[in-house]
Amino acid sequence: MTRNSPIRPDRIGDDIAALAAITETGRPWTRRAFTPIFLEGRAWLDQAMQAAGAITAVDAAGNLVGTIPGRRPELGTIMLGSHSDTVPEGGRYDGIAGVVAAMEVARALSDQGIELDHTLQVVDFLAEEVSIFGVSCIGSRGMSGTRPLEWLERQSQGLSLKHAIAQMGGDTAQEARRNDIKAFLELHIEQGPVLEAEKLDIGLVTAIAGITRIEIVVEGRADHAGTTPMHLRKDALTIAARIALKVEALANALAGGAAHFAATIGEFDMVPNAANVVPSRVRMLVDARAERREDMERFLSELRLGVALISGDTGVLVEPLTIVSDNWPTPGDARLLEVLETACERLGATHRRMASGAGHDTAWMARITKAAMIFVPCRGGRSHAPDEATTAEEIALGAAVLLDAVLVLDQALQEEEKWDAS
Amino acid sequence: MTRNSPIRPDRIGDDIAALAAITETGRPWTRRAFTPIFLEGRAWLDQAMQAAGAITAVDAAGNLVGTIPGRRPELGTIMLGSHSDTVPEGGRYDGIAGVVAAMEVARALSDQGIELDHTLQVVDFLAEEVSIFGVSCIGSRGMSGTRPLEWLERQSQGLSLKHAIAQMGGDTAQEARRNDIKAFLELHIEQGPVLEAEKLDIGLVTAIAGITRIEIVVEGRADHAGTTPMHLRKDALTIAARIALKVEALANALAGGAAHFAATIGEFDMVPNAANVVPSRVRMLVDARAERREDMERFLSELRLGVALISGDTGVLVEPLTIVSDNWPTPGDARLLEVLETACERLGATHRRMASGAGHDTAWMARITKAAMIFVPCRGGRSHAPDEATTAEEIALGAAVLLDAVLVLDQALQEEEKWDAS
Repeated sequence: MTRNSPIRPDRIGDDIAALAAITETGRPWTRRAFTPIFLEGRAWLDQAMQAAGAITAVDAAGNLVGTIPGRRPELGTIMLGSHSDTVPEGGRYDGIAGVVAAMEVARALSDQGIELDHTLQVVDFLAEEVSIFGVSCIGSRGMSGTRPLEWLERQSQGLSLKHAIAQMGGDTAQEARRNDIKAFLELHIEQGPVLEAEKLDIGLVTAIAGITRIEIVVEGRADHAGTTPMHLRKDALTIAARIALKVEALANALAGGAAHFAATIGEFDMVPNAANVVPSRVRMLVDARAERREDMERFLSELRLGVALISGDTGVLVEPLTIVSDNWPTPGDARLLEVLETACERLGATHRRMASGAGHDTAWMARITKAAMIFVPCRGGRSHAPDEATTAEEIALGAAVLLDAVLVLDQALQEEEKWDAS
Repeated sequence: MTRNSPIRPDRIGDDIAALAAITETGRPWTRRAFTPIFLEGRAWLDQAMQAAGAITAVDAAGNLVGTIPGRRPELGTIMLGSHSDTVPEGGRYDGIAGVVAAMEVARALSDQGIELDHTLQVVDFLAEEVSIFGVSCIGSRGMSGTRPLEWLERQSQGLSLKHAIAQMGGDTAQEARRNDIKAFLELHIEQGPVLEAEKLDIGLVTAIAGITRIEIVVEGRADHAGTTPMHLRKDALTIAARIALKVEALANALAGGAAHFAATIGEFDMVPNAANVVPSRVRMLVDARAERREDMERFLSELRLGVALISGDTGVLVEPLTIVSDNWPTPGDARLLEVLETACERLGATHRRMASGAGHDTAWMARITKAAMIFVPCRGGRSHAPDEATTAEEIALGAAVLLDAVLVLDQALQEEEKWDAS
């Protein structure tokens, strides 16, 4: 389907393979932000961006940015990209596909001798995945001016985030927020099973789900497991089990609607965790995702009620729920989605609109510019795991959609009035 | 109530306080087996036993034994004791009360100028609590010839158990099993709330509950918490929650009967335990205790059935249950219990018969000799925790019961025929 496109799947495949080779030894594929191997990947990317004709630099927020100046730089920037960091033992495509696709767009333009009016930038955002500092999207939050100041003092492995960003080449004393970006597009693997199941080429992301994280702490009482009669216990685990099933039931009910909803207890820590002691305390972290804010609100209120009832019924204390983080859903820019949809049609790429359950840098870039993203299919929805897979051809088709959209936007963005009136 | 007894609560209180002072700094009360602070406690006990008139030695199994030779050593040994090791952040009485009471019996005999016909031994068993090697009752299993040979190769902190026992003064190349012990008595705090609630002085332990430990492993699948639809998940945690509630329900049903039954999931480990990943695996360790073996058999068969149904209903694999350890209930020696009961009556100590939900060294000593134990009350049933509490007076009354029983046994054991006919 990319027969008539200057996008070359072979170069995409080569780039993916080259980055995959840069992994922690014996633990494929691991290239976590702030590690030496991450910087090796960055060095390779820096060379690859330069080979694509870009001038490279690390911005104040620690993002690697390749710049191809436009003929009319005063028009501002069209930015493409994603991230090159991985989770521990992650895959070869999450984030990486989007960085490589952006580079291929730059190469395809260069091959054809096309100069844009806008400046084109290819970006590798710093630390999109949850990093050793316990937070994610550090680079895109920096670039969008939404990185909380207190994050800079977060410590990990004897280092503050501020110093870690400096080690990546950033400078948190400088302003990182950009105001020259006119459009941002990100290609990403779906990380879900829908496109593959429906045999579609492209997902047009209508919204990035809001992510709310809720900490639940059950305070039971440590007692001797052998001698304490069953009816005199305050067993934190059996209460936590009831809460876990309540979370599941609420999520199942909300997931039955039209919009995406999911809730997961991803972290579960019990103390004292000793064979012969009744568990005294369980801490759970609920990760809830909603395409519609009203679903999240309903989940939170029903969860609060459910937990209070469980605590009341059993006489075991559950601390008031703590909202650790609460990000609202981010809709994709409607006009960018139209441009992307038209590109799909022109290229013969089958497509559908769908929400993203995962968070992405695009959600932060949407704070400062028109932003949208597309998904390409992946195998079995597997992601954040070594068996994460897609093909160079599937990424290439997505890159061709991006290329088409960039060419359209380079003109259309110049007609701001027309856009704003549409 | 010990007015007419040569047992002195003041000496018991002093001993308890002296041992309490020998703790890991800033982490009272911690004196785990095989640690330097444990050896400090042992050094203090060695001196205290000698001051009580005993000849001290560490036996081949690593137990500290104080010997007061009898007038007719060929009759064999009456042994009293318990253990001085603690759990991490444990209490001042669990085990320790029994060692101190045994020393006080020796001192009281000495004060009165009484020499027994039998040799009297006071013992501090090695590592009754679950040790850094993951097993318990190491010393009493050694002395009773029931310590599995493969245990010696267990590793912890770069050391094998064999070498750790050697560091305690033992020698696993030597035979540790004893065949000269004619009776063993242990005093212990109840570690449960019954005696205090019923305002009784002494518990006569009819049986030490059998302890069966069952490992349950749920094998789900790691998926992205944001993108994987609820109905396509294999969430190991929500399955584990169902199993935890099944364990609780079965235990509650069995605990409603006449005999002691309890089941606890004390260990619960989840992977990958990451905020945004559906849990792929949960390992649980069930600790089940039964006074009657038939209750344990019923629990195991109903648990197997329940787990199979949960696995079948949800399509998530649960590995076949693994019986990690399976110790049957140990009845107290009937004739020793009669002697102890008569001693209570003579001393005006109120008493009841009751099962022990906790395991004890007595259960292992019962393999090689007549063995029985008594409980003294403790506050609120609290144990294995810093707020574990009882009083020197309560221990002293128990020690007086032991003293009375030892004097009776010193004669009665000589009439073996009479005993065997009774």
